[in-house]
Amino acid sequence: MIKVGIIGATGYAGAEIARIIYGHPQAEVVWYGSRSYIDERFSSIFGNFFEIVDEKCLDDNMEELAEKVDVIFTATPQGLCAGLVNDEILNKVKIIDLSADFRLKNVDIYEKWYGIEHKSPQYIKEAVYGLCEINREDIKGKRLVANPGCYTTCSILTAYPLVKEKLIDPNTLIVDALSGVSGAGRGAKTVNLYCEVNESAKPYGVANHRHTPEIEEQLGYAFGGNIVINFTPHLVPMNRGILATEYASLIKKEDGSLPGEEEIRAAYEKYYKDEKFIRVLPKGTYPETRWVENSNYVDIGFKIDERTGRIIMMGALDNLVKGAAGQAVQNMNIMFGLDEAMGLDMVPAFP
Amino acid sequence: MIKVGIIGATGYAGAEIARIIYGHPQAEVVWYGSRSYIDERFSSIFGNFFEIVDEKCLDDNMEELAEKVDVIFTATPQGLCAGLVNDEILNKVKIIDLSADFRLKNVDIYEKWYGIEHKSPQYIKEAVYGLCEINREDIKGKRLVANPGCYTTCSILTAYPLVKEKLIDPNTLIVDALSGVSGAGRGAKTVNLYCEVNESAKPYGVANHRHTPEIEEQLGYAFGGNIVINFTPHLVPMNRGILATEYASLIKKEDGSLPGEEEIRAAYEKYYKDEKFIRVLPKGTYPETRWVENSNYVDIGFKIDERTGRIIMMGALDNLVKGAAGQAVQNMNIMFGLDEAMGLDMVPAFP
Amino acid sequence: MIKVGIIGATGYAGAEIARIIYGHPQAEVVWYGSRSYIDERFSSIFGNFFEIVDEKCLDDNMEELAEKVDVIFTATPQGLCAGLVNDEILNKVKIIDLSADFRLKNVDIYEKWYGIEHKSPQYIKEAVYGLCEINREDIKGKRLVANPGCYTTCSILTAYPLVKEKLIDPNTLIVDALSGVSGAGRGAKTVNLYCEVNESAKPYGVANHRHTPEIEEQLGYAFGGNIVINFTPHLVPMNRGILATEYASLIKKEDGSLPGEEEIRAAYEKYYKDEKFIRVLPKGTYPETRWVENSNYVDIGFKIDERTGRIIMMGALDNLVKGAAGQAVQNMNIMFGLDEAMGLDMVPAFP
Amino acid sequence: MIKVGIIGATGYAGAEIARIIYGHPQAEVVWYGSRSYIDERFSSIFGNFFEIVDEKCLDDNMEELAEKVDVIFTATPQGLCAGLVNDEILNKVKIIDLSADFRLKNVDIYEKWYGIEHKSPQYIKEAVYGLCEINREDIKGKRLVANPGCYTTCSILTAYPLVKEKLIDPNTLIVDALSGVSGAGRGAKTVNLYCEVNESAKPYGVANHRHTPEIEEQLGYAFGGNIVINFTPHLVPMNRGILATEYASLIKKEDGSLPGEEEIRAAYEKYYKDEKFIRVLPKGTYPETRWVENSNYVDIGFKIDERTGRIIMMGALDNLVKGAAGQAVQNMNIMFGLDEAMGLDMVPAFP
Repeated sequence: MIKVGIIGATGYAGAEIARIIYGHPQAEVVWYGSRSYIDERFSSIFGNFFEIVDEKCLDDNMEELAEKVDVIFTATPQGLCAGLVNDEILNKVKIIDLSADFRLKNVDIYEKWYGIEHKSPQYIKEAVYGLCEINREDIKGKRLVANPGCYTTCSILTAYPLVKEKLIDPNTLIVDALSGVSGAGRGAKTVNLYCEVNESAKPYGVANHRHTPEIEEQLGYAFGGNIVINFTPHLVPMNRGILATEYASLIKKEDGSLPGEEEIRAAYEKYYKDEKFIRVLPKGTYPETRWVENSNYVDIGFKIDERTGRIIMMGALDNLVKGAAGQAVQNMNIMFGLDEAMGLDMVPAFP
Repeated sequence: MIKVGIIGATGYAGAEIARIIYGHPQAEVVWYGSRSYIDERFSSIFGNFFEIVDEKCLDDNMEELAEKVDVIFTATPQGLCAGLVNDEILNKVKIIDLSADFRLKNVDIYEKWYGIEHKSPQYIKEAVYGLCEINREDIKGKRLVANPGCYTTCSILTAYPLVKEKLIDPNTLIVDALSGVSGAGRGAKTVNLYCEVNESAKPYGVANHRHTPEIEEQLGYAFGGNIVINFTPHLVPMNRGILATEYASLIKKEDGSLPGEEEIRAAYEKYYKDEKFIRVLPKGTYPETRWVENSNYVDIGFKIDERTGRIIMMGALDNLVKGAAGQAVQNMNIMFGLDEAMGLDMVPAFP
Repeated sequence: MIKVGIIGATGYAGAEIARIIYGHPQAEVVWYGSRSYIDERFSSIFGNFFEIVDEKCLDDNMEELAEKVDVIFTATPQGLCAGLVNDEILNKVKIIDLSADFRLKNVDIYEKWYGIEHKSPQYIKEAVYGLCEINREDIKGKRLVANPGCYTTCSILTAYPLVKEKLIDPNTLIVDALSGVSGAGRGAKTVNLYCEVNESAKPYGVANHRHTPEIEEQLGYAFGGNIVINFTPHLVPMNRGILATEYASLIKKEDGSLPGEEEIRAAYEKYYKDEKFIRVLPKGTYPETRWVENSNYVDIGFKIDERTGRIIMMGALDNLVKGAAGQAVQNMNIMFGLDEAMGLDMVPAFP
Repeated sequence: MIKVGIIGATGYAGAEIARIIYGHPQAEVVWYGSRSYIDERFSSIFGNFFEIVDEKCLDDNMEELAEKVDVIFTATPQGLCAGLVNDEILNKVKIIDLSADFRLKNVDIYEKWYGIEHKSPQYIKEAVYGLCEINREDIKGKRLVANPGCYTTCSILTAYPLVKEKLIDPNTLIVDALSGVSGAGRGAKTVNLYCEVNESAKPYGVANHRHTPEIEEQLGYAFGGNIVINFTPHLVPMNRGILATEYASLIKKEDGSLPGEEEIRAAYEKYYKDEKFIRVLPKGTYPETRWVENSNYVDIGFKIDERTGRIIMMGALDNLVKGAAGQAVQNMNIMFGLDEAMGLDMVPAFP
């Protein structure tokens, strides 16, 4: 039985890790870390766990935690994991960090976009970017995984095969994305009150959202060179879900014609055919967040527009599962040599 | 492996049975019956099942179905199950009927409240009312189970111990209940369109909702005599969930005083202490539908009002799980001698 | 032109006063008081006012304010108005207080239910309870009006004629009410975050909500004696709207029969026939909050249940309009001798 | 008093016309046309009008209607207006058509995108495209106005000044738009049921939505040449609102630099400075649909992304007001020589 510690267990992502691990046959949570609720019963914060989890919340003492568990999930604000981690800890325990601390390989870019100093840049190189379907082999056996962001997981997976196969020009890429409100976290802010969000849609972080360099870096690896893109997130009134609609110019073939439906589909098949959690939808069907809710699936669809020479790629996932806790558990499974889908094969819940 | 057939698989309750059975280690769906979608792929109707269930929808030929499966769930409008069932079928297969056809023991009351003729009253006596926590022993080995309604499951379980223990006067009982919209089914009606339901709350079926006699009959058994109650359902803008707020006058003790917190709690404990799926909340905590969503739990809380001599009992459940598909599977588990919670031990999903 | 000052202009009710006054032909807001946002542009807090209202927020200096305006609306937490008001101010300006400070005539009851000391009990007697349709004559010419709460306006108006006409026994009255989330105000609390409220329904303040004594006092006047009732509010996921479902035993007539549809309807007609803002719905039609949203209307319907001898009365209103700002402006109109509906005759907005 | 007839009065846009006209000081509805509800009281379909409008619904006999009214609003499916209109009618009455019948000047494009034959192409030339802020002068005195679509009004107004001033390359334009559900109409379709739409976001009509050629035609006029764009609508769970996020490459200046904040803002000011209903937001502020709900305003914001050389333009409006009924009334005001904002100066409702 893998012993799991969660730092930040009373945030939405942290509690979702607890929920998923509860149904995992070979792991169990033994440490519910929550600085804000120390000594309070976890189930008094998240009533869904009443009579299911009896434990009280503990602090985020990573030294002590490292003695007691096999893997730590840090579902915490940027900077916390980087500020706590050290060699002694990493020698004892695996860490899956859900914050951005180890996602970007270039520390300058991290410090510029996040506006904080990186406290342990020495581990950036070692850390692997935990986008399971792309970096599976690198994740195996690693002790530090940077779990990708929700927008980025969706944005990257939706475009990856076409970038990799040079079917689209990545510098024309525009990612227009929608998010449910749980992505904003559980902090008590006026802007996230029910009445402020309900019956409204809004863009935010326009041209400066922190997930932008993460998408650029990863798709840049696929492309084999630096790229710049536009990424615009929007908040829409629903609890869960990310929907990314992505636009890019198709690269003409040697004969001057555009790649067709079959070539595009073949590219997706090449990379995703055997991926359990990526479902490439049939022609004419596009992703809807309702079909992936409460699951680890990413649904992807596309449409070629011959009038403009662009392709519209669309992806959907549950931001708390494949966009956070689910992928984190998937990473844990890979790191520990378990079946990658263990504890994650729930059918999406609808309605 | 128990072979399962679903008639009405493309309604919300039918699809939820399919979803729950998918996670059940000892049962599998082999027949997705749906008169409206014959020969269409089930996953083309419910996209959450894409690449998970490959089968096409079949008709509702119960004769043929009885040859192929061990248990049939009928998640269909009133009258359908009663119109199809016969001795030959019942000799071959177990039936769990999610409609009201076999819930009421008095056929006149059925015909009066439902406005249709009962086509097979000869099976009413045999059928057991599948409220698992109350009728567990009777369900074992039965071939025909009448699965309770969503409002009724919540309403009955919330008041049952106090009625049974004669702590409240059941003829003062008023059940005021709220329901999410999935309870209205998937039929294309203007009244259930998004814009008609969203941002609104309304009562309906006032003093004549069909779940009324079902509650009265079952609580009447507990009380040991006929009772009449008020039941008022309301539609509120959310997908899932039933919340029942129930009022009744406490019966004074011999010394003229009212039963207190401890006596009430003792009554709940007496009946529910060992019930996995019933969670009696601590003092001062009341049920919220968010804490039971996507699970088979019923949460119950109460408050004594000494000013008025009444008790307010409150219960919450997920109408598609404990209020329909989950309880149906719980009944299946009991009928087949399996662990009652098999396939049903999911933590409620939040948010 | 009546000059209006609002203290608490950046709460939901305060901003709704500003919105209604903007459309009022004989009044204008000249003071947007908001302790939290002093010197910030009002429209930077409420973007709907961008390019419509240019003023900045001011403090809540009531002395100064009294020099500048004809009427002050205090849309503030309990205690603030009572703490600021004095003779000098009341001699200069009319005050419409949207808090509970002057609603209850018995200061002990106020202090017990609100848990704070009343700072100016000397004005309680003078203050009139501003339920316009009931106390219209008393409101005329008054200098201090206690604007009723949202739940109370709905609860009282729905039952008033039947209590007054002794058709129901008020001590059997149970008020089960639903509220949209704007009733909880704009404070940044975790419990009112979108994801905490959305997709959930919950009771709160069970048997101890502060609107209880307010309902009891007012219906007690109608009845001609003290009464105790049960009142249970619930939070449901929508922005606006109150729906009250009320239960009471009908008082039998001398011949032992129950009052019938016609007698009940006659009672409602007697009091509300000429009331513009109260709409008594035809038989079989019940209130829905969508039909009163963004308007000053109260919709009322009822159903007699002969089986139980009870009547179910139902009322709906918009908590920010008739339940707060709209009724406050209606009170202003009455106090200043204007047409009572001035600025308030908007058709409810749907969808 | 202008006499108004509405054909299609029981759709969402038709009823919104009725609501706005009710508050219009110089117009009144005298004909509530609704083929589906003939002889039923209008307020029995739209309960918000109870005790406000007493009329019954009538048919859509345009000949008769032309005798009785001064202006007809056709809020009907495509093809209906074109099928009914003729010289005799147009000589008697002004028509404001909310369908697409007279929006596109090229009948072939109409027939290709809408898939129906145009029944009266002879009036296409005469009809004016009723985008008030752009075509105001042409609308004056006209007898046939094609009221723009909701997506198109938002999409065009958001980009118009920059296209007109050649600050952006219109062939790089990508319009990614979100809509509330009322845009889908009131027809009873499964896909628009509450549970299907709630808690989900989805793209639809990808690369083939009918509003595409309308945007292309109008922005083509501004540009002075044919353009092709990408337009992707999405459905998000809210009643009202359109949010358009638009991307285009900025055209470099002669010195090779990009236009800056000031130049862009100057272009918006040039066209919109005096427009009451268009609000260009300050730097760093972006449109949110909550701030325009229930009003005729369009809010516009923008952000230059120097990294990619693109500008992100964003616009928001209420699809039933500025996107349908409000603009239709604005057109009526212009046609009849009234103050353009008459009956339309409501502050947006929030929350």
